[in-house]
Amino acid sequence: MKNNSVKDLLLNTGTQSQVKVNGWVRTFRANRFIALNDGSCIDSIQCVIDFKNFDDSTLKKINTGTSLEITGSLVESQGSGQKFEIIVSKLEILGECDSDKFPIQPKKHSFEFLRDNAHLRTRTSTFSAIMRLRSSLSFAVHSYFNSNGFYYVHTPIITTSDAEGAGEQFRVTTLDPKNPPLNEKNEVDYSKDFFGKETSLTVSGQLEAETYAMSLGKVYTFGPTFRAENSNTSRHLSEFWMIEPEVAFMDLNGNMDLAEDFLKHLLNHIIKNNIDDLSFLEQRLTNEEKTKPQNLRSDMSLIDKIRFVIDNDFKRITYTEAIEILKNSKPNKKKKFKYLIENWGADLQSEHERYLVEKHFKCPVIIYDYPANIKAFYMKLNEDNKTVKAMDILFPGIGEIVGGSQREENLDILNCKMKDIGVNPEDLWWYTDLRKFGTAKHSGFGLGFERLIMFATGMSNIRDVIPFPRTPQNAEF
Amino acid sequence: MKNNSVKDLLLNTGTQSQVKVNGWVRTFRANRFIALNDGSCIDSIQCVIDFKNFDDSTLKKINTGTSLEITGSLVESQGSGQKFEIIVSKLEILGECDSDKFPIQPKKHSFEFLRDNAHLRTRTSTFSAIMRLRSSLSFAVHSYFNSNGFYYVHTPIITTSDAEGAGEQFRVTTLDPKNPPLNEKNEVDYSKDFFGKETSLTVSGQLEAETYAMSLGKVYTFGPTFRAENSNTSRHLSEFWMIEPEVAFMDLNGNMDLAEDFLKHLLNHIIKNNIDDLSFLEQRLTNEEKTKPQNLRSDMSLIDKIRFVIDNDFKRITYTEAIEILKNSKPNKKKKFKYLIENWGADLQSEHERYLVEKHFKCPVIIYDYPANIKAFYMKLNEDNKTVKAMDILFPGIGEIVGGSQREENLDILNCKMKDIGVNPEDLWWYTDLRKFGTAKHSGFGLGFERLIMFATGMSNIRDVIPFPRTPQNAEF
Repeated sequence: MKNNSVKDLLLNTGTQSQVKVNGWVRTFRANRFIALNDGSCIDSIQCVIDFKNFDDSTLKKINTGTSLEITGSLVESQGSGQKFEIIVSKLEILGECDSDKFPIQPKKHSFEFLRDNAHLRTRTSTFSAIMRLRSSLSFAVHSYFNSNGFYYVHTPIITTSDAEGAGEQFRVTTLDPKNPPLNEKNEVDYSKDFFGKETSLTVSGQLEAETYAMSLGKVYTFGPTFRAENSNTSRHLSEFWMIEPEVAFMDLNGNMDLAEDFLKHLLNHIIKNNIDDLSFLEQRLTNEEKTKPQNLRSDMSLIDKIRFVIDNDFKRITYTEAIEILKNSKPNKKKKFKYLIENWGADLQSEHERYLVEKHFKCPVIIYDYPANIKAFYMKLNEDNKTVKAMDILFPGIGEIVGGSQREENLDILNCKMKDIGVNPEDLWWYTDLRKFGTAKHSGFGLGFERLIMFATGMSNIRDVIPFPRTPQNAEF
Repeated sequence: MKNNSVKDLLLNTGTQSQVKVNGWVRTFRANRFIALNDGSCIDSIQCVIDFKNFDDSTLKKINTGTSLEITGSLVESQGSGQKFEIIVSKLEILGECDSDKFPIQPKKHSFEFLRDNAHLRTRTSTFSAIMRLRSSLSFAVHSYFNSNGFYYVHTPIITTSDAEGAGEQFRVTTLDPKNPPLNEKNEVDYSKDFFGKETSLTVSGQLEAETYAMSLGKVYTFGPTFRAENSNTSRHLSEFWMIEPEVAFMDLNGNMDLAEDFLKHLLNHIIKNNIDDLSFLEQRLTNEEKTKPQNLRSDMSLIDKIRFVIDNDFKRITYTEAIEILKNSKPNKKKKFKYLIENWGADLQSEHERYLVEKHFKCPVIIYDYPANIKAFYMKLNEDNKTVKAMDILFPGIGEIVGGSQREENLDILNCKMKDIGVNPEDLWWYTDLRKFGTAKHSGFGLGFERLIMFATGMSNIRDVIPFPRTPQNAEF
C-alpha cells in the first residue's frame, strides 16, 4: 500500500477504508489521540487508537518526536478541530525519541534556542511554515520569469571580480594556510593558488548577468551571494540568496514596473497557495505583538499587510523629492533623527527610509534618481550630470528590499567612472566589451530573498528565515 | 509602442501593421536583408530594408554585432526559410560594432576560442541554444518537485562539514593571507577567522538536506557545489550545480523509481518546450560527427537518444551482476580493459561503465547494492553485512549521472562506520541526532546538472554547458 502524505489525506482523498501514513508525533494525549505530522503541511492528522488493542510497551514509546507508521481508516472526525481523522488499526514504531533528551518539546521555545538546534527546528510549526513559504516563494520566482520570457543564468560563485567595487569579500584558496608561497616582491604568490590568481566569493551576479542580457535579452540569476562584513544585526547575513533580473533594451521606468509587478506576483502566489501557513504565522505574530506596548503594534495583520502591497501602487518619488519631505519632517525639525537631513546629497539612513515608508506614505516607496556619488559606478548618469538612474524599493518594517538601476552603456562615461573609484577598466575588460560591441540600454535589480521572506512571514530576525544562517562567528551545521 | 521579442513575432502575433523589435545583427546581406537576433529564440527575424530610404552612413554601420531598434510591418515572407519578415520603416543604430575587433564573426569558431570569449559566446546560435536549454531544464527541475510535494531547501555553501569524508575542499577565509594568526601550538588560529573556525565550500548539501527530509518529508536542493580536485578533464568542473532530493520513509527501490521518473520528466520537458533549440544542436552534432571515422559516430541522432531514454525502462542490475557480466566480457577476456575485472569488490572504472551502457545493454543502467568499502559512510548497510543500498545511474556517452543511496538510519552502525573512516561522530552531532530522535529510513540522490545538460545538448566538454566555467588555473570573468 502506498504512503499518503498528511496533506493529501486532509485535503484530497476523502474518507477511505485503508490508508497508510508516516510521520512524527507532535503530541499524544489521553492514551488515545496521536497528532502525527509529516511536514507536508501545517496541520497534523489526528490518529485515534484504542489502547486495548496495543501493547502497553508500544504505547509507552509514543512520545513527542517518535516516528511512526500508521495504518487505519480515514473517517470524518467526530471532534472539532479537524475534518478527518484516522482510526488506527496498525501502528509501528519506526524510531523512538527520548523525551528527556529531545530538544523540541510541545511548549514555547525561544528563537535563540531553536537557532542552536537549526537541524531540528523545522519539526516545529513555526519553522516548518517559514520554510514551506520559502520554498513556495522560490518557485514563484522561477515561474514568474519562466512565463515572462526570461532565461535563468547560473552566474559564477567563485570570482575574480567585485561587482560593487568595494564589497568585503571572502577569499577562496587552497594555498598552504600557514606558509603560503611568496613571490619575488615577498607577497603571497597567488599564481600558485588553485585558479592561478586571487579568487573570492561573489557579492553579486550582476556583471556576469549583464553579459547574458546582452545576448539572450531577458535573464535572471537566483543564487547565493556573500558579504564578509562584520555586522551582527537582525537584517544581515554573511551568506544569503539574491535574485537579479537583467533586461536588454529596458530603461529605469521599465525596471521599476518590472520590480513592482514581480514583487506583487510573488506575494500573490503565497496568498493563493499557502494561506494555511500564512494564517498560522499571522496568529503567531499577533500573539507576539500582544506582548508589546500598544504604540509598537502593527495596525495591520500579516495577511492584510501582504494584501496591501498586492493591491496598492508603490509610491514613486525622486531622491530630491525624498530629501524635501525629510527636511521638512517633524523628526528632522525636532532633531529626532540621529542623522539630520540638511543638504541634498546626504545618504539616506534606515531611520529616513522608515519615516518615508511607515509614517509619511504608509506604503511601499520607490526612490529613484540618486546622487551619482553615493551609488555604484555602473549606474547610468542622467543628463543633469549629477544623478544616476538608480532606484531602491523600501518596504514597511524591512527597509530596502530591492536595489536596481539602468546601467551605464556609454563606454567613455563608464571608463571615467571606473577610474574615478580606482577600478582598472582592463580588469573588467569583458564588462567594457559589452559597451564596445553593439551596446544598448539595459537595466536590472537585485532582490534580497531573505528580506522578502521576513516580510512575508512576519519574522523579525533574518537568521530565522534561512535554513542554516551564516553570520560572524557562526557557521555551525 | 511596446517592444516585441523575435520569438513572439515569429510564433505568436501573426501579421501586424506596425511592430518594434530590438536586437543584434547576425548578418546583413545584399544591402537589403538584416538577420536580427534578440536571444529569445534560436531564429533571427529577417528585416528587409529598401536602401534608397536610408542614409548610406547609417547602412555602413550595420555589421554583425550592431544593436538596432527596428520599426516596420510584420508580413508573411516571400522568401523561403522564414514564415514572417519585417518590412522596415524606421531603423535606429543603438550601438555600433567594429567588425575588425568583434570576436564573434559569422563563421565557425572553435569552442576553445569561444571559451576565452565566454562573455560573448551566447551571441552564437550554438551557445544561446545550450543556455536556453540549461534554463529550461532548471525550470523543469523546480516544476517536477513542486508538483510532487517536495520543498526546496537552500543548504549552506560555506560549511564546516565534509559530506564525503574525503572530498578536497576550498578554504573560505578572511585571515591575513601572508601572516595568519597562530595559536599556542604554532598552528593557524582559526578561532580568529571570520566564522571562528575553519570553513570551506560545500561538496554536497546532502547531510543538511537530510535534516529537512526528517521534518518536512520530501525536500530537494539545487545549488552550486565545489571540488578542489586538480583534474583537468572534459567531465569535471571545480564549481558545478547539483540537484539533491531527499525523502523520508523511502527505501532504495523508491529512490531508483524517483530518479528514473525525474530524469524522464526533465528530458520530456525539453522535447515539449525546446524542440527548435534541440533541432539546431542535433544538426550541429550530426555535422561534427561527419568529421569522425564511421565507427565513432553515434547510431542515433541527438533527439532520438533523448526519446530513447524517455521511452525505455532503465536496466537495473546489482553490482554483483555487473561484475559477472564484466568478468565474462570480451574486452576483459582479451585484456582490452585498462583495469581488468578479476574479483568481486573491484571499483568500476569509466571504461567498465561505458561497456555496460553502450555495448552490453545499450540503454541507461542502474547499478545497486555496491560493496560497502568502496562507498560513503552514510549509506545503509544491507543484511549481508558487506554491501550497501547504493545506486548509480549510468547514461550513454556521459557515464555516471546520478549517485544515490538509502541512508544508514541506525545510530550504532552509523557511529561505527564514521569511526572506521576517521570521522568523529561528535563533529557531526546534528547528523547523528537525526538517528536519535525519531529516526526512520530515508533516501536520496545527487544529479550532476552539467552532466545532464551535456547529454541533452550533445556537447562533449562540460566547460561548454555552464556560463563561466571554473577549472584549475581558470576563474576568468
